[in-house]
Amino acid sequence: MSNRISNLFKIKYPIIQGGMIWCSGWELASAVSNNGGLGLLGSGSMYPADLKENIKKVKQATNNPFGVNIPLIYPNVEEIIKIIIEEKVPIVFTSAGNPKTWTEILQKEGVKVVHVIANTKFAIKADEAGVDAIVAEGFEAGGHNGREETTSLTLIPLVRSVTALPLIAAGGIATGRAILSAMVLGADAVQMGTRFVASIESSAHQNFKNQIVKVPEGGTRLALKQLIPVRLIKNKFSNDIEKAELEGKSSLYLSELLGNRRAKLGMFEGDIDEGELEIGQVSALINSIKPVKNIFDDILLEFRVAREQISHDRFKF
Amino acid sequence: MSNRISNLFKIKYPIIQGGMIWCSGWELASAVSNNGGLGLLGSGSMYPADLKENIKKVKQATNNPFGVNIPLIYPNVEEIIKIIIEEKVPIVFTSAGNPKTWTEILQKEGVKVVHVIANTKFAIKADEAGVDAIVAEGFEAGGHNGREETTSLTLIPLVRSVTALPLIAAGGIATGRAILSAMVLGADAVQMGTRFVASIESSAHQNFKNQIVKVPEGGTRLALKQLIPVRLIKNKFSNDIEKAELEGKSSLYLSELLGNRRAKLGMFEGDIDEGELEIGQVSALINSIKPVKNIFDDILLEFRVAREQISHDRFKF
Repeated sequence: MSNRISNLFKIKYPIIQGGMIWCSGWELASAVSNNGGLGLLGSGSMYPADLKENIKKVKQATNNPFGVNIPLIYPNVEEIIKIIIEEKVPIVFTSAGNPKTWTEILQKEGVKVVHVIANTKFAIKADEAGVDAIVAEGFEAGGHNGREETTSLTLIPLVRSVTALPLIAAGGIATGRAILSAMVLGADAVQMGTRFVASIESSAHQNFKNQIVKVPEGGTRLALKQLIPVRLIKNKFSNDIEKAELEGKSSLYLSELLGNRRAKLGMFEGDIDEGELEIGQVSALINSIKPVKNIFDDILLEFRVAREQISHDRFKF
Repeated sequence: MSNRISNLFKIKYPIIQGGMIWCSGWELASAVSNNGGLGLLGSGSMYPADLKENIKKVKQATNNPFGVNIPLIYPNVEEIIKIIIEEKVPIVFTSAGNPKTWTEILQKEGVKVVHVIANTKFAIKADEAGVDAIVAEGFEAGGHNGREETTSLTLIPLVRSVTALPLIAAGGIATGRAILSAMVLGADAVQMGTRFVASIESSAHQNFKNQIVKVPEGGTRLALKQLIPVRLIKNKFSNDIEKAELEGKSSLYLSELLGNRRAKLGMFEGDIDEGELEIGQVSALINSIKPVKNIFDDILLEFRVAREQISHDRFKF
């Protein structure tokens, strides 16, 4: 399959692994890239020296393109950009910040720049900033999330209607059927997070991976809407937050309850009660922790079967 | 197109118009049925005598099958069921209640029974109750909504995985691309509400229709989660509710603020500030009020174009 995204990144399949904090180290990124997708390192949970080491290890583990996700609100951004350029990382995904700040600087160094958005307003801003592609992330996605709560089914065509940029859909996608479905709606490619967290190669703690497999339908919640909305597994911590929100507690109170190491505690250290466990709604569909190769085999087969089915006359009208 | 749903209802296209309160009278239902879909009367906002009159008028206006939506928590249910049987209504959609209560009674009279659910638990219950089909309604849908907040992209395959019943997807669907997308995910048919409210034939007040066209992205909100969650256009009333919720006000306070005629006030009488305006997220994609015939022409064309596109080699991998 050759399309605008696979051509842009020089990859075989237009399937991107989200660069998630605490879960996306060199083992996951290189496994995805080796299987024909695009693996991303999640720099949001790495000190600059850790990122540098992870980049070197990805390069050793694969000859295929890979990228780095950079949340632009993080404190070490300048140092991270410097490393990206020094190490000649071919692709950068930016999020949570103004795409104008770094896009041109990176592109002049030959880096392809993709920006993550959750509404059309920022899709237009990213387009104006000259990015090479955008990720549109729906309400069902894990982790940080838009305030509009627009779901992928509505967001993909909305974004498609305001920009001609190559469009990567994210949120609610863990199967080959969902990939085809996103493409029907106008996406050129997909970014999958949740499915890859529950892989053998992800750096998520085993307790967190086990929890993803157990998450029932309705087992996640978009929490902390007064601060930055984030989709979490419902656990003791998330229930404490919900209780405080229902009691009308202040943003300051919520910030203190959140603290600054809940994400590491939950996702990397495996405290499934007190930790912040960022995951998408689609975790309800995930029943096993698998090697990246098996994930690719499964989704490619599902995609082919679904595409074959709808070309059947039964779907003609 | 012939499939399980079009065969079950004896209709040309597997496209159902939701039986919405204050918007779905005989003019809308008969227009949809005359155009090859399935039109539903919304009995939730009709006194029994009004429903009887609407049924008679639909029968005069179309020879095609039609149906009635019955929210099972409404007070006049027994009387409504009696009218359904007397008037030989061929199809009933039930929601908001136990599907066991009426399914067998209706089926013995030759009525096809469909039940609306928003999670797999109730999909299984509906299956056990012996219904002929189910509607799975996602978080993005207008009006009353599930507590799990599961979006259509996740809900459709989840429901598909627990029951072999014919499956109608609802929530976020207003275009031919979205119909195909839902079918890729495992739906046999779709139910569209929002798109048909913004039609010439719907009985919604013109002010409400005009407001739907104006709704921006993020212009709806799932409100009243402490009572029964309902997706509304953000207006003065909905903002008052949100303010009360953020202040941690009681369910009793919220019930009193809601009162019992906000829906009629907004959707039927056209008070767009103080009324309850139930609509789906997909209203952000709707830019004009059209006759039902044009809606069908447009979505059928979009569906055919989308299906043709993905059969192209560009989508092969």
